[in-house]
Amino acid sequence: MRRLLLVSNSTLYGSGYLDHCEENIRSFFSRDVKRVLFVPYALHDRDEYAKIARNKFQSLGYEVDSIHEAADPVEAVRKAEAIFIGGGNTFRLLKCLYDNKLVTEIRKRVLEEGVPYMGSSAGTNVATISINTTNDMPIVFPPSFSAIGLVPFNINPHYLDTDPNSRHMGETREQRITQFHEEPGTPCVLGLREGCMLLVEGDKATLLGTTKARLFMRGQPSVEYSPGSDLSFLLTAAQ
Amino acid sequence: MRRLLLVSNSTLYGSGYLDHCEENIRSFFSRDVKRVLFVPYALHDRDEYAKIARNKFQSLGYEVDSIHEAADPVEAVRKAEAIFIGGGNTFRLLKCLYDNKLVTEIRKRVLEEGVPYMGSSAGTNVATISINTTNDMPIVFPPSFSAIGLVPFNINPHYLDTDPNSRHMGETREQRITQFHEEPGTPCVLGLREGCMLLVEGDKATLLGTTKARLFMRGQPSVEYSPGSDLSFLLTAAQ
Repeated sequence: MRRLLLVSNSTLYGSGYLDHCEENIRSFFSRDVKRVLFVPYALHDRDEYAKIARNKFQSLGYEVDSIHEAADPVEAVRKAEAIFIGGGNTFRLLKCLYDNKLVTEIRKRVLEEGVPYMGSSAGTNVATISINTTNDMPIVFPPSFSAIGLVPFNINPHYLDTDPNSRHMGETREQRITQFHEEPGTPCVLGLREGCMLLVEGDKATLLGTTKARLFMRGQPSVEYSPGSDLSFLLTAAQ
Repeated sequence: MRRLLLVSNSTLYGSGYLDHCEENIRSFFSRDVKRVLFVPYALHDRDEYAKIARNKFQSLGYEVDSIHEAADPVEAVRKAEAIFIGGGNTFRLLKCLYDNKLVTEIRKRVLEEGVPYMGSSAGTNVATISINTTNDMPIVFPPSFSAIGLVPFNINPHYLDTDPNSRHMGETREQRITQFHEEPGTPCVLGLREGCMLLVEGDKATLLGTTKARLFMRGQPSVEYSPGSDLSFLLTAAQ
């Protein structure tokens, strides 16, 4: 029984780290979970990042083990009660997951053994089939853009609407996702605006939070979904 | 004698395709060049893209051959009098350059045989040592982020200043380039704002256009440069 909490953004404007989703975190990890394995690979200063995550999770009643402090990262995943991968640079994160041989191990634990997985921003990107729809700068070269593959579609976190007043001529987010869908065989992309998140429990997917999500399907008009929407069809039909 | 015109953006707000740099194009290609080889790989619709480029260059007095219409792309590069690589998606562009075995061929023609090279946006990114500082979405997986390497530093085209009024919590452009510089051995990044471009003639580099550029060096404060600035030091010291 797969259990995922895929959050668009770690910090919402005007509030603190993970404040906007703390009730969701509490209900997601439930009382069975005592310790969460944190993966800080997306940021450069892992000690500092682990401190921030530890403080926040302790305030919610969970202990945090940071994988960068483990002697054997694969063993740490094997023993984990729950996993949380934080945001930062998606390329750095995915490369480090591959370098440490964790991609397959995390997939196995989450999909076959039901270990709850929470991701935020880059941690949400790597939970999908690929990082092809990250917003991040490609600062390092991972061996593949294929990711952990806990869901059969792509997510664009921090989804941003086009600003009609902008004079900047770089591509809008919508144009970027449209370019992705010009490539053959590309799956759906769920654009999660800051403030929303996707809860997956087995074959059920629900949009949570306070903002809408926008779904992009290859060759079809995009569709808006409000918090509370059942998005379970994405888990089967997206491929 | 290397000759490069590396433009930040193809279209400036309020004007048409390449309008803002047409005087620079005219003086760059001079009267010796009659035909320009256009590389439309960064966009999906190559026929349409070639039409746009052809119209613009014809209005400036140059004929355009589009490489996607050539039976043998490598041979087209070997025969080219001048090369222009247009903007679009940098990942798609670089992958296609590798797929067609053009990276080494273009490098050789430009650095060893003095064929003038113009790039705009993605075409500017691929002219540098790597695409590590592109703004684009990684819609396809190229075999490497290493690029043509006509200059020994990176460029960030469409450089964008931080908007102090934004409530969006995605990384600013400056934060993204700072993340790049957290990685070991990373070179300088020249942030070219929309409206400016870099002219390279042999060992001389000059900022042209109407906007400033911002230079990011690993472990040092960034520096602003105005149009007309001599940036030749980047060609030797950047590595």
